[in-house]
Amino acid sequence: MTVFKGAETLAVGDSLSWDDVLAELPFNADGLLPAIAQQHDSGEVLMLAWMNRTALLETLATGRVCYWSRSRKGLWRKGESSGHLQFLKELRLDCDGDTLLLLVDQQGPACHTFRRSCFYLALRGENVVMLSAPQSPD
Amino acid sequence: MTVFKGAETLAVGDSLSWDDVLAELPFNADGLLPAIAQQHDSGEVLMLAWMNRTALLETLATGRVCYWSRSRKGLWRKGESSGHLQFLKELRLDCDGDTLLLLVDQQGPACHTFRRSCFYLALRGENVVMLSAPQSPD
Repeated sequence: MTVFKGAETLAVGDSLSWDDVLAELPFNADGLLPAIAQQHDSGEVLMLAWMNRTALLETLATGRVCYWSRSRKGLWRKGESSGHLQFLKELRLDCDGDTLLLLVDQQGPACHTFRRSCFYLALRGENVVMLSAPQSPD
Repeated sequence: MTVFKGAETLAVGDSLSWDDVLAELPFNADGLLPAIAQQHDSGEVLMLAWMNRTALLETLATGRVCYWSRSRKGLWRKGESSGHLQFLKELRLDCDGDTLLLLVDQQGPACHTFRRSCFYLALRGENVVMLSAPQSPD
């Protein structure tokens, strides 16, 4: 039985060891897990990116979110060049451990377009509508 | 230039054609995109699953969320057996179109464990803590 299957029967407040969970995280064939970043207080979903084990452990060690860039094939320390840092408030895992939910405090825009969230396009009828404007530089 | 790159410069309220967007959705090598389900009013992130083109189009046609089950290799009409349907309120796309955000109205629990959200495990110090209890059957 996996650690995640075993966790299903825990009562609220019960816990298991992070080491045991980490050992069984089901990274995909590329060694990655999808990570959703959600602003911790507003609930806004900001972005989805990917983490490998190294990025995850660095994020936990520093408190600043670090992803794995699939296009650049390297660690992506969010905000390193833009200054738009993402601070981790809490890491959550889903029922089978194959998706991470990062509750974060996002400094400025999360998106490379300077919009607060990357999810700025909405389908309305037959059209895809722009929802938000880029934020002004600091 | 992709439709998504072109969309970056749209003003709020401007739109483009869904047909043009759909034609350029960057499904991965398995023909899938990750889809985040978020309760539309509370902002709670409920789950992450995957959609292929067929699942996405069925979801839009019916208003009930349909995923692609990677384990069962088939369409997964959310709630078909459990009755815990997910109704689509709005489809959003991220800046490069490779992640979907589904604003939904979830009937009952989203998780197979009968918890409201699949993200019921939180890392606190060296432990992973259970956050929520299964909901009672209807």
